[in-house]
Amino acid sequence: MNIPEVGLTLEHIIDVFPPEERQAIYRAIYQRRDIRHFRGDPIPDPVLARIIQAAHQGPSVGFMQPWDFILIRDQERRQQVKDLFHRERQAAACFFDEPRRSQYLSLKLEGILDCPLNLCITCDPTRGEVVLGRNSMPETDVYSTCCAVQNLWLAARAEGVGVGWVSILKLPQLRQILGIPSHVVPVAYLCLGYPTEFPEQPMLETARWRNRLPLEDLLHYDGWGQVAESAEWSGFKQELR
Amino acid sequence: MNIPEVGLTLEHIIDVFPPEERQAIYRAIYQRRDIRHFRGDPIPDPVLARIIQAAHQGPSVGFMQPWDFILIRDQERRQQVKDLFHRERQAAACFFDEPRRSQYLSLKLEGILDCPLNLCITCDPTRGEVVLGRNSMPETDVYSTCCAVQNLWLAARAEGVGVGWVSILKLPQLRQILGIPSHVVPVAYLCLGYPTEFPEQPMLETARWRNRLPLEDLLHYDGWGQVAESAEWSGFKQELR
Repeated sequence: MNIPEVGLTLEHIIDVFPPEERQAIYRAIYQRRDIRHFRGDPIPDPVLARIIQAAHQGPSVGFMQPWDFILIRDQERRQQVKDLFHRERQAAACFFDEPRRSQYLSLKLEGILDCPLNLCITCDPTRGEVVLGRNSMPETDVYSTCCAVQNLWLAARAEGVGVGWVSILKLPQLRQILGIPSHVVPVAYLCLGYPTEFPEQPMLETARWRNRLPLEDLLHYDGWGQVAESAEWSGFKQELR
Repeated sequence: MNIPEVGLTLEHIIDVFPPEERQAIYRAIYQRRDIRHFRGDPIPDPVLARIIQAAHQGPSVGFMQPWDFILIRDQERRQQVKDLFHRERQAAACFFDEPRRSQYLSLKLEGILDCPLNLCITCDPTRGEVVLGRNSMPETDVYSTCCAVQNLWLAARAEGVGVGWVSILKLPQLRQILGIPSHVVPVAYLCLGYPTEFPEQPMLETARWRNRLPLEDLLHYDGWGQVAESAEWSGFKQELR
């Protein structure tokens, strides 16, 4: 097990992390943001290596590790991706009525050319022969890749590096720009770099586009739509307030 | 922004986490495991609340928050899920040749009845009307849900709680057992509880089922299959060793 060296040795490992370490995990989770405003500074090589290694430590069905990482600095390629984004963004605007449409078009939704690095994380469904655990739910290969993305996102937050996920792109065109084989799925197209800030709230919450949903409304007990009637859940529900 | 209280106040926030906090993030990422062996102890309510809140802080396309959480303690429901697992596991075994088949059948792949809590995390593709950023890649709703799962998995690791993802289940039957509407996707079926141990390696690596892939083999530069020829990548490649 090759933990990046920021001081820990295996002797320190116990099952439950001490409070300050747990706090650090929650801080990364709560302060992670989808970043679209970047400063130009490059990401130092050791930092970039650590956050990509963090992705490679993601869970994967049958230890399949279906991911690949395309690191893109080339400006011409990035310009092509940005052109693709522009086209998709205009098309998507057609599905909103005013005043939502104008608001949508006013939002900055990517930093493809402003950031120092683009990163496309893909999923290869053909990796490994028969993959343990993928027979009943073949889509778990892509699920694994998403978990790897979240590892990278949280590690980046801790390193002060911002990550922005650009989903306003179509896959066949993106494959063509990056030369990705047709059987490989581009799961995440990410912009990486130091942000001008990590905003306190998600941008779409600040812009009053959508609100955070009350967690209580998303909980079900023992079956869909079932409420917690028994006393055994009362303590848990109290903790959510 | 409602950070679970383990001591931090917003005054402490700077862009880059101090080394010991960064180390904590990497520790959670590197020591997270897919757990199948559980001790019976229940998860205290505050701990359970924190790790589910961590999931709800996941990133989501257009701030869609498409997830729901079904908490399952009921033994009868869990027995039904376990029966479903058994059937799927036997079926999947048919796709392996010996000696892989015997090895597959010897592996413990779930802790559905042994752990104190099962948790099904679902994705509702109909949440929100038109979702910003989902026009070109509609599958980003499920991707968001997977990122939420990984948040929960890492928070649980820090809390000493083990998580095991059971993917050897078929969706229509799982929907039926839990009463999930047909348009809602059960993304992750998880077993939660204190583990007998957090093994140093993934079980499938220890069992020599598959090896961890060399990260270098998964990297591409500016396009699929392209190697890093320019000197600008040499420092980064050095860091990976």
